[in-house]
Amino acid sequence: MAKWFKAMPDFVRRLILLATLLLAAAFAAPPAAAEDGYDLWLRYRPLPPALRQVYAPRLAQLSVTASSPTLKAARQELERGLDGLLGERPGLGGVLIAGTPRSSATIARLRLRLEGLGDEGFVIRSVRLGRRPATIIAANSDIGVLYGAFAFLRRLQGGQPIEALDLREDPKLKLRILNHWDNLDRSVERGYSGASLWDWHKLPGWRDPRYVDYARANASIGINGTVLTNVNANAEVLTPLYLKKVAALADLFRPFGIKVYLTARFSAPIELGKLPTADPLDPRVRDWWKSKADEIYRLVPDFGGFLVKANSEGQPGPQDYKRSHADGANMLADALSPHGGIVMWRAFVYTAAPDTDRAKQAYEEFKPLDGRFRDNVIVQVKNGPIDFQPREPFHPLFGAMPKTPLILEAQITKEYLGFATHLAYLGTMWEEVLGSDTFARGPGTAVAGTLTGMAGVANVGTDRNWSGSHFDQANWYAFGRLAWDPARSAEAIAGEWSRMTWGNDPEVVAPVVAMMMRSRQAAVDYMTPLGLHHLMATGHHYGPGPWVDDLERRDWNPTYYHRADRDGIGFDRTASGSNAVAQYAPPVAGRFAGLETVPDDYLLWFHHVPWDHRLRSGRTVWDELVVRYSRGVGAVREMRRSWASLEPRIDRERFEQVAAFLAIQEEEATWWRDASLAYFQSVSRRPLPMGHAPPAHRLDHYKSLRFPYAPGQ
Amino acid sequence: MAKWFKAMPDFVRRLILLATLLLAAAFAAPPAAAEDGYDLWLRYRPLPPALRQVYAPRLAQLSVTASSPTLKAARQELERGLDGLLGERPGLGGVLIAGTPRSSATIARLRLRLEGLGDEGFVIRSVRLGRRPATIIAANSDIGVLYGAFAFLRRLQGGQPIEALDLREDPKLKLRILNHWDNLDRSVERGYSGASLWDWHKLPGWRDPRYVDYARANASIGINGTVLTNVNANAEVLTPLYLKKVAALADLFRPFGIKVYLTARFSAPIELGKLPTADPLDPRVRDWWKSKADEIYRLVPDFGGFLVKANSEGQPGPQDYKRSHADGANMLADALSPHGGIVMWRAFVYTAAPDTDRAKQAYEEFKPLDGRFRDNVIVQVKNGPIDFQPREPFHPLFGAMPKTPLILEAQITKEYLGFATHLAYLGTMWEEVLGSDTFARGPGTAVAGTLTGMAGVANVGTDRNWSGSHFDQANWYAFGRLAWDPARSAEAIAGEWSRMTWGNDPEVVAPVVAMMMRSRQAAVDYMTPLGLHHLMATGHHYGPGPWVDDLERRDWNPTYYHRADRDGIGFDRTASGSNAVAQYAPPVAGRFAGLETVPDDYLLWFHHVPWDHRLRSGRTVWDELVVRYSRGVGAVREMRRSWASLEPRIDRERFEQVAAFLAIQEEEATWWRDASLAYFQSVSRRPLPMGHAPPAHRLDHYKSLRFPYAPGQ
Repeated sequence: MAKWFKAMPDFVRRLILLATLLLAAAFAAPPAAAEDGYDLWLRYRPLPPALRQVYAPRLAQLSVTASSPTLKAARQELERGLDGLLGERPGLGGVLIAGTPRSSATIARLRLRLEGLGDEGFVIRSVRLGRRPATIIAANSDIGVLYGAFAFLRRLQGGQPIEALDLREDPKLKLRILNHWDNLDRSVERGYSGASLWDWHKLPGWRDPRYVDYARANASIGINGTVLTNVNANAEVLTPLYLKKVAALADLFRPFGIKVYLTARFSAPIELGKLPTADPLDPRVRDWWKSKADEIYRLVPDFGGFLVKANSEGQPGPQDYKRSHADGANMLADALSPHGGIVMWRAFVYTAAPDTDRAKQAYEEFKPLDGRFRDNVIVQVKNGPIDFQPREPFHPLFGAMPKTPLILEAQITKEYLGFATHLAYLGTMWEEVLGSDTFARGPGTAVAGTLTGMAGVANVGTDRNWSGSHFDQANWYAFGRLAWDPARSAEAIAGEWSRMTWGNDPEVVAPVVAMMMRSRQAAVDYMTPLGLHHLMATGHHYGPGPWVDDLERRDWNPTYYHRADRDGIGFDRTASGSNAVAQYAPPVAGRFAGLETVPDDYLLWFHHVPWDHRLRSGRTVWDELVVRYSRGVGAVREMRRSWASLEPRIDRERFEQVAAFLAIQEEEATWWRDASLAYFQSVSRRPLPMGHAPPAHRLDHYKSLRFPYAPGQ
Repeated sequence: MAKWFKAMPDFVRRLILLATLLLAAAFAAPPAAAEDGYDLWLRYRPLPPALRQVYAPRLAQLSVTASSPTLKAARQELERGLDGLLGERPGLGGVLIAGTPRSSATIARLRLRLEGLGDEGFVIRSVRLGRRPATIIAANSDIGVLYGAFAFLRRLQGGQPIEALDLREDPKLKLRILNHWDNLDRSVERGYSGASLWDWHKLPGWRDPRYVDYARANASIGINGTVLTNVNANAEVLTPLYLKKVAALADLFRPFGIKVYLTARFSAPIELGKLPTADPLDPRVRDWWKSKADEIYRLVPDFGGFLVKANSEGQPGPQDYKRSHADGANMLADALSPHGGIVMWRAFVYTAAPDTDRAKQAYEEFKPLDGRFRDNVIVQVKNGPIDFQPREPFHPLFGAMPKTPLILEAQITKEYLGFATHLAYLGTMWEEVLGSDTFARGPGTAVAGTLTGMAGVANVGTDRNWSGSHFDQANWYAFGRLAWDPARSAEAIAGEWSRMTWGNDPEVVAPVVAMMMRSRQAAVDYMTPLGLHHLMATGHHYGPGPWVDDLERRDWNPTYYHRADRDGIGFDRTASGSNAVAQYAPPVAGRFAGLETVPDDYLLWFHHVPWDHRLRSGRTVWDELVVRYSRGVGAVREMRRSWASLEPRIDRERFEQVAAFLAIQEEEATWWRDASLAYFQSVSRRPLPMGHAPPAHRLDHYKSLRFPYAPGQ
């Protein structure tokens, strides 16, 4: 034994032995807690040593004066992030300063040109303070600082450089809102991730810490509002008992820049106020809403306002009194405007007795109202003219109401894209619609340029991983990032998310992003290729039902939409049909209306064509349909293979859930293809092209399947 | 600097510095993960060093031949427990051996007198193997080994000695079963802990790891069966689609000794089989059930059998065809018996048109059937004759059906005891009923002695902490421990649970156990003192509704049960009234029937007395009622104080939830007292005794409260 070892005092020798053991344990031990997805993209797991060595000296010290709840949240998030990502940091070195000119004298002195950043923007700047390197996160407002803190942590999580930073960001859209279709009994309409997060019964007495994690997650992607309740609204939430509960949530969300909104049931003055009418022009009704708004603002001083679904799918509305949507919206707007609240009025309407193409109805009802809404009314329009289908052309109202602010409503929850078990990244879908040129003010007027905000129908619930599946977290993430900046690319967002969620290993990032980028097209292919739409089974929308033709309303039936018969398939929306194309600006209308110019992806949306119609591929429509259905299944099979290869690089629990879900997806994609082809073949009477195996079962089998308890109803 | 320090090679010096840092970090760091209750009583947090020093040398090595899935589970649990409780163990020292004579040659050689332990018992014995100390966990069966492993870990968790062990345990009841009132849409009837654990939609493709943790928790307390579905049954679970899902759960539970049971909807042959009848004597019906049983056993070879609620609260049953409960049960029993399955037939029945005291009906219907059931039929009887009230006398069927095996049905979920937010430990309630002397075979025939099993209506759901509250975990735990051995004391079980759940700090154990031991009496006092019962609001049973008298059925109304009027209060169940007392053995009946002998706790259950009737306390019934209502509220206030004093000793997250729930409980206990007294005072027209403040509101206020979305409906 070395002399120096023997020379040491006994306790030091013991210390060395212990240290050796501890070191061995520290490096041998598996990660402390299994990864179950609860942490979302805010995992803050230790970075590789090489990165830590670069970052830690520049971030030795953190300086945030927590002079408000929001700045306190920013400081806590930075502490949590730096502690997690970097572990122990040296006591000396660079400093990270976050604040506003009011909260930090240093920031005030730095003259950072904060003008033009508005209420929510931020700068991140590398400077020197004397001889010390400093990183500054600065904003005009506390919430800007919090957004900047999350942006900075995202850089660290992604392993990006933090030297010589000069970043400047502010949100491109003002309203970035989640819509929860959550009911007061905690069921969630179109929810596939457990029950509603809102534990109404225990509120306000019990404030689940999860509410704060929800707010953190939203703030990290710039979401600044949340509608707590289902658009199929229940007036009960407007009673004093519930408003106290709403106020408790608002208190928890406020530091994170998230305003609370509620859905307003149009008939509430009757149900709660015992009035004989809910006529928006009746003074008693107007008074009732005014005093209800006053009551709400006493409890929630920064209440956001109301979201309203009226005269749609059985909901009450102003048309019950022969008033217009504008009359209804303006009445609520007048009640809210003294307090600064807004009304988001949904354009998703279709009349009870459809005498026209359902795709045309929102435009027909709302376009004439342009200019008739109060300033604090915003019309909320779904991305496409039908209903969150795997692929729709953009909604013709975008660009068509220049005097009315519009919100684009997207569905984050996957009602029509495989629920929680199918991997379908929606960033590409939203990128597609946001980038579509409306030609509203000449060429180059993308949908994104016509918007004041985006609303996303939330996919979060009580499931441990929030969104029902790990990959569905990416849709929540992408929604927030696109609402912040609709010009951001879906692929860049997928990369960001993948790094934050699965780690920086390039052998993981590349295949994960590749899976995500092709996943939505895969779902389109195995569900509704070539512009087909609304082929899902009744009610729950789980699985295929292209044969369904017996529902009460004609426009609830898949046969209404695909119109397949012995001769051909597709919905003629050109001048020879419903002429829905005419709702678009002429250059768009012309492109969609021409059989030579319409993109294959929208062919059967706009055209009824013979089965033998030839596509650009050279194949007939029938053959192309079969090829695309099969291609969709093949893509899922590819995703499974790709994921399986990542097993050694992904933590066990998350790996296995994704693997199990992909297996379910392959099974269900095959079911979609087989059931759809069995049906369409029974109509087209054509043979499958060479190399395509026939469906596993006869059509009757697919028709016989029942799923009375599929989730989300 | 010391010479020896300088003399060391540089890397060693660095190592020492690093070690010092690591040590500092290790001891300064808070526990790795916040405690959220997910781990239940199987937390396995590190024991205090003094205990570790005692245990670790005796448990240096673990030897379990994992020759079956159950033994593998035992080994994994012991590894997990020892790693967590003891951390690193010395490589040399004593050995822990677990197995059966078949799995372990050592155990076979030891001649441990395993006879008489049956299929589920175990021994834990300290022996010497050569010069080595050894601890042996041995059993005849693999599941006995697993039960022994959990028992041994429980000793370690409680800090009990493990030297010179000679323990021998086997379960006193054969059937120890959870009943899940879970619906296929994942709602849970009377569930207050989130949604159903069974994610039917994703089964069998996705097997949530939580299913295994559920099985571990149950095995740890000896539960050996689980009924997956609601007694208000849905035939759909018997379809091939669902049976495959059931089989997946059965596969996961099997290693943990847990058999799967289903509820059988009596009309399933009509609904699924398209038969014109479900008459149990119709051969087509008998054949349908036989082939259904065959189908189930092909998928689940160890399927447990059926639980049936028939001709009760609108459920179909044999009486629809003028057949008896015995006819119905025997028909199902015949279908199951070739496979070894059983039928649990519930005695919770009351006729649609009550012409008699509802408390009498189960006895009247079932007592005459004693001896008419097949061997594999077990009659399942609620603990009391009404319905899981905060306090009921024991059910008169216990001891009254000597030829029929009986299961006692207890409600772990707290439908009538404050849902998830009230702290009410039910161990004392069950101890009370299990220990009640039926005098069925002379004095000393306790209820426990008349049983073949216990069924507990589960309180577990998707809430992170499983049971809705941390303290409600104790009720799950106590149910299992009492079903294993009904003679165990509720206080000992509370102590065990407290140590495993909150740690061994005696300053925590004593007050926690004290809170638990008084908690159920507190709930009785602030809800239904002196033998009052069924005073809850309609439907959801949340909060007080003693004034309700307008429900369709007379025996759904609280006024039916308390019968309070100007002159007095209580339900006369003596010979001058419904004579329900006569259903008990004469010594019991005599005690309950005598105004001088009836315990105060059952006074108004059995007697209608004038308001001025004097109790043993010297107070009138009216005054005693007020005193007890107030005492209940006072006890909750005491619990809050007691819990608050534990703040420094309990991890933050769990501390805060319990504190918040106790605040809710105090508020609701006060509501119960005030609403009840406001009502009873409006009837009795008597002044409150001195020192008792009047209710905070007028009676009308309490009557006006509505809770349409209270959970559990």
